[in-house]
Amino acid sequence: MDIKELLTQVQNGSLSVEDAERQLTRESFTELGYAKLDTHRKQRTGFSEVVFCSGKSDEHLAAVFKRLAQEEQDVLGTRATPQQYELVRSVCPAAVYDPLSRLIKIESSGKQTRGSIAVCTAGTADIAVAEEAAQTAEFFGGKVERVYDVGVSGLHRLLAKLDVIQAAYCVIAVAGMEGALASVIGGLVRNPVIAVPTSVGYGASLHGLAALLTMINTCANGIATVNIDNGFGAGYLAVQINRLALQHT
Amino acid sequence: MDIKELLTQVQNGSLSVEDAERQLTRESFTELGYAKLDTHRKQRTGFSEVVFCSGKSDEHLAAVFKRLAQEEQDVLGTRATPQQYELVRSVCPAAVYDPLSRLIKIESSGKQTRGSIAVCTAGTADIAVAEEAAQTAEFFGGKVERVYDVGVSGLHRLLAKLDVIQAAYCVIAVAGMEGALASVIGGLVRNPVIAVPTSVGYGASLHGLAALLTMINTCANGIATVNIDNGFGAGYLAVQINRLALQHT
Amino acid sequence: MDIKELLTQVQNGSLSVEDAERQLTRESFTELGYAKLDTHRKQRTGFSEVVFCSGKSDEHLAAVFKRLAQEEQDVLGTRATPQQYELVRSVCPAAVYDPLSRLIKIESSGKQTRGSIAVCTAGTADIAVAEEAAQTAEFFGGKVERVYDVGVSGLHRLLAKLDVIQAAYCVIAVAGMEGALASVIGGLVRNPVIAVPTSVGYGASLHGLAALLTMINTCANGIATVNIDNGFGAGYLAVQINRLALQHT
Amino acid sequence: MDIKELLTQVQNGSLSVEDAERQLTRESFTELGYAKLDTHRKQRTGFSEVVFCSGKSDEHLAAVFKRLAQEEQDVLGTRATPQQYELVRSVCPAAVYDPLSRLIKIESSGKQTRGSIAVCTAGTADIAVAEEAAQTAEFFGGKVERVYDVGVSGLHRLLAKLDVIQAAYCVIAVAGMEGALASVIGGLVRNPVIAVPTSVGYGASLHGLAALLTMINTCANGIATVNIDNGFGAGYLAVQINRLALQHT
Amino acid sequence: MDIKELLTQVQNGSLSVEDAERQLTRESFTELGYAKLDTHRKQRTGFSEVVFCSGKSDEHLAAVFKRLAQEEQDVLGTRATPQQYELVRSVCPAAVYDPLSRLIKIESSGKQTRGSIAVCTAGTADIAVAEEAAQTAEFFGGKVERVYDVGVSGLHRLLAKLDVIQAAYCVIAVAGMEGALASVIGGLVRNPVIAVPTSVGYGASLHGLAALLTMINTCANGIATVNIDNGFGAGYLAVQINRLALQHT
Amino acid sequence: MDIKELLTQVQNGSLSVEDAERQLTRESFTELGYAKLDTHRKQRTGFSEVVFCSGKSDEHLAAVFKRLAQEEQDVLGTRATPQQYELVRSVCPAAVYDPLSRLIKIESSGKQTRGSIAVCTAGTADIAVAEEAAQTAEFFGGKVERVYDVGVSGLHRLLAKLDVIQAAYCVIAVAGMEGALASVIGGLVRNPVIAVPTSVGYGASLHGLAALLTMINTCANGIATVNIDNGFGAGYLAVQINRLALQHT
Amino acid sequence: MDIKELLTQVQNGSLSVEDAERQLTRESFTELGYAKLDTHRKQRTGFSEVVFCSGKSDEHLAAVFKRLAQEEQDVLGTRATPQQYELVRSVCPAAVYDPLSRLIKIESSGKQTRGSIAVCTAGTADIAVAEEAAQTAEFFGGKVERVYDVGVSGLHRLLAKLDVIQAAYCVIAVAGMEGALASVIGGLVRNPVIAVPTSVGYGASLHGLAALLTMINTCANGIATVNIDNGFGAGYLAVQINRLALQHT
Amino acid sequence: MDIKELLTQVQNGSLSVEDAERQLTRESFTELGYAKLDTHRKQRTGFSEVVFCSGKSDEHLAAVFKRLAQEEQDVLGTRATPQQYELVRSVCPAAVYDPLSRLIKIESSGKQTRGSIAVCTAGTADIAVAEEAAQTAEFFGGKVERVYDVGVSGLHRLLAKLDVIQAAYCVIAVAGMEGALASVIGGLVRNPVIAVPTSVGYGASLHGLAALLTMINTCANGIATVNIDNGFGAGYLAVQINRLALQHT
Repeated sequence: MDIKELLTQVQNGSLSVEDAERQLTRESFTELGYAKLDTHRKQRTGFSEVVFCSGKSDEHLAAVFKRLAQEEQDVLGTRATPQQYELVRSVCPAAVYDPLSRLIKIESSGKQTRGSIAVCTAGTADIAVAEEAAQTAEFFGGKVERVYDVGVSGLHRLLAKLDVIQAAYCVIAVAGMEGALASVIGGLVRNPVIAVPTSVGYGASLHGLAALLTMINTCANGIATVNIDNGFGAGYLAVQINRLALQHT
Repeated sequence: MDIKELLTQVQNGSLSVEDAERQLTRESFTELGYAKLDTHRKQRTGFSEVVFCSGKSDEHLAAVFKRLAQEEQDVLGTRATPQQYELVRSVCPAAVYDPLSRLIKIESSGKQTRGSIAVCTAGTADIAVAEEAAQTAEFFGGKVERVYDVGVSGLHRLLAKLDVIQAAYCVIAVAGMEGALASVIGGLVRNPVIAVPTSVGYGASLHGLAALLTMINTCANGIATVNIDNGFGAGYLAVQINRLALQHT
Repeated sequence: MDIKELLTQVQNGSLSVEDAERQLTRESFTELGYAKLDTHRKQRTGFSEVVFCSGKSDEHLAAVFKRLAQEEQDVLGTRATPQQYELVRSVCPAAVYDPLSRLIKIESSGKQTRGSIAVCTAGTADIAVAEEAAQTAEFFGGKVERVYDVGVSGLHRLLAKLDVIQAAYCVIAVAGMEGALASVIGGLVRNPVIAVPTSVGYGASLHGLAALLTMINTCANGIATVNIDNGFGAGYLAVQINRLALQHT
Repeated sequence: MDIKELLTQVQNGSLSVEDAERQLTRESFTELGYAKLDTHRKQRTGFSEVVFCSGKSDEHLAAVFKRLAQEEQDVLGTRATPQQYELVRSVCPAAVYDPLSRLIKIESSGKQTRGSIAVCTAGTADIAVAEEAAQTAEFFGGKVERVYDVGVSGLHRLLAKLDVIQAAYCVIAVAGMEGALASVIGGLVRNPVIAVPTSVGYGASLHGLAALLTMINTCANGIATVNIDNGFGAGYLAVQINRLALQHT
Repeated sequence: MDIKELLTQVQNGSLSVEDAERQLTRESFTELGYAKLDTHRKQRTGFSEVVFCSGKSDEHLAAVFKRLAQEEQDVLGTRATPQQYELVRSVCPAAVYDPLSRLIKIESSGKQTRGSIAVCTAGTADIAVAEEAAQTAEFFGGKVERVYDVGVSGLHRLLAKLDVIQAAYCVIAVAGMEGALASVIGGLVRNPVIAVPTSVGYGASLHGLAALLTMINTCANGIATVNIDNGFGAGYLAVQINRLALQHT
Repeated sequence: MDIKELLTQVQNGSLSVEDAERQLTRESFTELGYAKLDTHRKQRTGFSEVVFCSGKSDEHLAAVFKRLAQEEQDVLGTRATPQQYELVRSVCPAAVYDPLSRLIKIESSGKQTRGSIAVCTAGTADIAVAEEAAQTAEFFGGKVERVYDVGVSGLHRLLAKLDVIQAAYCVIAVAGMEGALASVIGGLVRNPVIAVPTSVGYGASLHGLAALLTMINTCANGIATVNIDNGFGAGYLAVQINRLALQHT
Repeated sequence: MDIKELLTQVQNGSLSVEDAERQLTRESFTELGYAKLDTHRKQRTGFSEVVFCSGKSDEHLAAVFKRLAQEEQDVLGTRATPQQYELVRSVCPAAVYDPLSRLIKIESSGKQTRGSIAVCTAGTADIAVAEEAAQTAEFFGGKVERVYDVGVSGLHRLLAKLDVIQAAYCVIAVAGMEGALASVIGGLVRNPVIAVPTSVGYGASLHGLAALLTMINTCANGIATVNIDNGFGAGYLAVQINRLALQHT
Repeated sequence: MDIKELLTQVQNGSLSVEDAERQLTRESFTELGYAKLDTHRKQRTGFSEVVFCSGKSDEHLAAVFKRLAQEEQDVLGTRATPQQYELVRSVCPAAVYDPLSRLIKIESSGKQTRGSIAVCTAGTADIAVAEEAAQTAEFFGGKVERVYDVGVSGLHRLLAKLDVIQAAYCVIAVAGMEGALASVIGGLVRNPVIAVPTSVGYGASLHGLAALLTMINTCANGIATVNIDNGFGAGYLAVQINRLALQHT
């Protein structure tokens, strides 16, 4: 919004005071009382609002999905239980659900994905978080390569997939336990690595805090970290980077 | 209690030694053996005693409510389960229950609320804690404005409600995850902000500790913090401030 | 700022587009490049901007003080070293310094203080933090009662001062070690208690974290907590409450 | 055991090599394979061995109780579930159970208690831990005064019971939340205070760690702390002190 | 103070209202403005007030020592630097100083010690804390046996001193690093063990927190813990126990 | 793999380019898509791959076991639930399960064990973790001596078994609560001690973190620590040491 | 490196076995004994190796700089003290030093920067870390916009600079205390935000851990976090993103 | 010591009661009052006692070294400052000092080392800790290979040294920051890996705690961890393993 232009329109009468006020006070959300849907978000960030399902009451969740489905073509919900999916499907029959990643998706068919995002995991127990990242990235148009079970205790598995990893615009490294995977990948690639600690591990993993600290303290360059088990956050950020990499193509 | 006056009354015979002793030793509570009801509290603090229901045995809870309901017009219970409410209702039929805030209330009808307390939340998942704050404030006579779902990731929602927030004598900012809402509000208002961290969040939120640290470390002025999920504590403090603001009206 | 009125003025020609833009984009600060002095703050919050001296480079500190002294009648600096004071005095000769509280003050003479704020400490080692609180409150017009060395290990000292504490609109409880003072005071007064943990203590005090946890977990009502050793924050908040209490007088 | 005497007996033939070896190698326990019952303990410490029931397999628990009941007159089990009690009762019909303290007791009738131990709690939710302490003390012969619900937020309740508390040889202070009770009592009595933090509290109580830190950092003298919710440990220590106080009577 | 008796005296005129008020309001301390000397403490607890020197300003420290030396025969100061001692000696020439324990003592000559307190250390680096404990105990009349450098990595050293340790009314176990000494001693003695964690150790000792946790979690009975490096607190508590053990002799 | 030899073979034509590439890129694992079985591991480390069952989906777990059972004679699975065992047995009928250690084993009959590994526990509640260690060691050919319930609170039980412990090539010390057992054993033996903290304990044991810190901070030499409750890790390491000790026999 | 091609060259004799071995074993570093300079890094990652000066011995530091300056045109050193700079300048006269960011740079003149990276700080005390980020980005060819002192306690300062921030390919948000800046920016922009917590703050900031937790727990999308005070890491990552954004121009 | 044989000797008169008592009570240490030199240690563990210099008073340190040098041929002191070395040299002229590892050594000349221990570091800043490990191992007769600066951010440096690492009986992995080196090595070798976290790193390394957690949580097998910066502990343990590996040669 160009404020000067808006004011000039008010001055010359091409915009009413009321309309200008609305724009300036940015009432660019849908008020539901208990929630304010950020329908301005897509214009501001290039991504439509995403529904964090966990902890929402049934009533609120259904209403939010229904309303967003009316306003947006595509809707994404994260951290949904199977019960929540049943609820959403009753008001939005087009919704689909993936129990591994716990994502609910309402999507137009025939979506094309572009670019290159590599999603790697240390072990098989990290795959649920990795899928949340991968499918989030795909939902927003990114093309994903999955490289699973390449933890550092068997380094040859990772080295065998190095070409795929090095070719990506962005690498997501998902690991629990000691989380060393991110550092090793960081030393081998040109492009950004997004590290996702998972809560997989024995007692002293502290539900993912140990892996988080590992990743934050990495000796490799070009690595930044998101919250424990936050596959969605990593996928979102990867799409932003992927989008920048593709922008002049 | 003016000790000098009391002693003078003893000296001149207008007060017996026994009555004076009772006043001085402050036996101003009701002894139940397992509990000592602080019936002196209203006189001392202006607020009647509140029942923290969580962890109380059924027998104790019922007896405490019954006794307080005999001595006070209004009784408030916090952190009550639906089962505990059924128990209380069996001895105090006038008790009502709100499952969201988990409050049990015995209240005289036609209560008037005064002043202005704004209760804000970052997201919809913080509403349960916010309602505990809001209804506590209302129970003790404060007038509450609810401003929900105005988290900092969509700042325009908060800015659109700025007039309501700035008009309050006291603002309660309820937020989980990173808890940044309190700092942002603190920079925009004249009056005190009470920050309530909630346990809402991903792994590294540490069940609300991360938000607590955020709020304690705020760069804004005029903010103080209560315990994680402690909506009651925030509501109580807000009423104290609201009461002061109204005192000379 | 009333946006509707402003827009109407633009529409009817009584306000130029340029002036309206400036107001709307809120360029209500003084740009120094390395800093943006918030000269709009007093209008927004009722308090002028305060300089947090700690960690500022000499050049920046001197320039900030000089500029604020030009724009405001009174200027307050916190956490200043004696060296920093010498520097400030060289550009603002009216500045005075208190080594205990580490405050630098530029103040108009004959300032009146009003209302009632009680500042209590558990021990003598907590006095430096308490003085930061007390003098901040006085700087902004609050009247302060000092009640020092009334820690809970000798309860009779606190009880002897109860009348002063109970008479205050707001009590600041400053304590290190286990920080129990706040809870005890909280149970004895009607008005808000602001708890300030200090870093005074033996090993397991964790530089004030133990006292902070004590205060956050208080079983008493009407208590909120600020950061460790943050006397300034407590004094500021106390003034806000004191101001509300006095507003209709 | 006097080694010199033993060796002299071996030398002069009044003790066989085999018997001397047994005494020296201290085979003063009962080997069960998975457990080694410390039947030497009573002689060494004045207390018979106590069974920590939590986490023991059913088979082991029953066998341990059965064996101890054969060797000792009195047996105490801590942290027992109702299910574990049923199991124990099936092999030791004399066993009794208190669900609040979770203690299993096999005791000779007509036990006399002596001395004076005061067990205080801050709130009613701390009573379960307090009862573990009180009944442990009584099991080992200590006389207990219970002073419950005297938390610092209503100080007059504590002051009204001061004579009982000051008369005790040892005071056990049981408190959750911020745990300030121990410090306040510590400043009022002559004799040792054993502080027991409980896991009662809101979010930042960290399951009792906050209260533990409070107690460890106490500004009062004559206070030592045991583990969170460890009523047994406090009761045991109180009996040791009580026993010393009575020893020359 | 017997309140009933006091009131009766007021009633029958043998006590003036003013004197009774003073007694009731417990002005049993010496007000210095910045400090309130608890001169009532000896009557209440059997121990005179002790000066915690650390963090006190020079002016305050000298004044406090001077005043206490006027009112009490013996004065103890803890955590004093050599500089602070020089200051104290200038106002109290009788003061002596031990640089190892950092205690300042003003003591009548020919003091007798009684009873039996064993002070044990794991290593030689723990001796400073042990001496603070031992000399505090001696200052208040306890007889001390020092058993130093008996850490668990060379168990035979501890076993060789077992008779001394088992004979004590109270054992103080001082240990840094992993702090295992307390548990081992706890299993070998009849009487209470006071555990003192020290800040001696490699990185993960967390400045004594690791040893503190070890001691709090001890599997042995009859152990309670004081703050890190708090030799004074342990010595004080040991004297309380020693005094009880001797009381009927 | 000797690279020079391989290249020479390529040069002289005795190895094809394709075969050389395969060896160099180390495709020495079995790709299952969601997992990469490290079938090269036995050659590299002397141990076949072990299946960490916890958190694996049913489908993946069954497939992994089936595939490994085809490629290896012996297969070990850790942290398996009884349900997971039923699943594995349906595809590998030779699999056996021990509910205490939660191990699934497919083993050739008549396995011989050699050497000497002592597995000690502090209490009976630590036996489950100890069995995971002992049976892992036996699975890989180590001979194990079990020494259970020798915690430091009854030192004579440990001393009575000293000959067994001192004779071992490697001692595994399994302990919860304060975890002091490792330090005491470390001071008594010549050979390495592997310390395993367990999550057994009261509140402040922090689910094993306290014992972990104790073991890491040990004052004894020759001790290293593995993760909380990680019996498998200790058993594996013990076998490595045992194997080295036996290598030239 | 294409292994197949290399092997084919060996096979057909165009590459000697020795040269092939060197390439395959990747002896692409310079061995200095105490250090292995990663001169292969630029080829692998697009960035030359950077010298982390902190903690290096003088001898090592000088030798490393000298050697790198021989092999690379540009050399960057981080966390250098002024003394270290003097040392480096004595062997590399072309080196320059910025005391604020603590960077040592050897750079070809006339370097062009491209793209758009916005570096924002909450306060002026965060500028040192911000400059490390900004100058690192510039060193590797990124164009930087500095937006300093736009903390959330005066939101209008940030909003006034929104156009600059929204235009950047990547935003670096540098903040201490509660670190809320990152979340607020994250909600306002399309492109990735790299959050850098700083160690600026009062007691409970825990030397930057509080801000780190805030940023990791952000409720906004498109944010990832690097280590406390790690301006270098943020600048490096920003350049990677900036480079991708520019790649097809 | 065979107790039966000893007793038989007493019985048949070949051993006096006094001599037998001395052996049984194990007075196998040298009592210095403030210290008890464990001169029995070599016989018990195969290693002579080592002097932990840090925190010892000058007087004690000199006396301990002097006495040990009289009783043992070789003496090792750890964590010594240059000042402490000067002191030791004044009483033991044969003592030598290495400022990097901070070791003081009194050694017979011509010592032979045997076996194979690889000491690896992630960076050059970890070398001081590594040298403490390496030289400790050499002092006790182990042969050491140093492999420095092979951190995971440049994996090819580690892979180039794989043959040396894989040939060792025991590998010591020394790393700060995120400490990932241990896991990567653990996956590549047959023999035990001892992980040593160092305190090298940026803010969130928490002085080595982050690396410690990484190593404790390792996904690789055959790794155990010692304390932060505890090079001595790792070297000692490595020698124990090396000694076992060589025992039958």
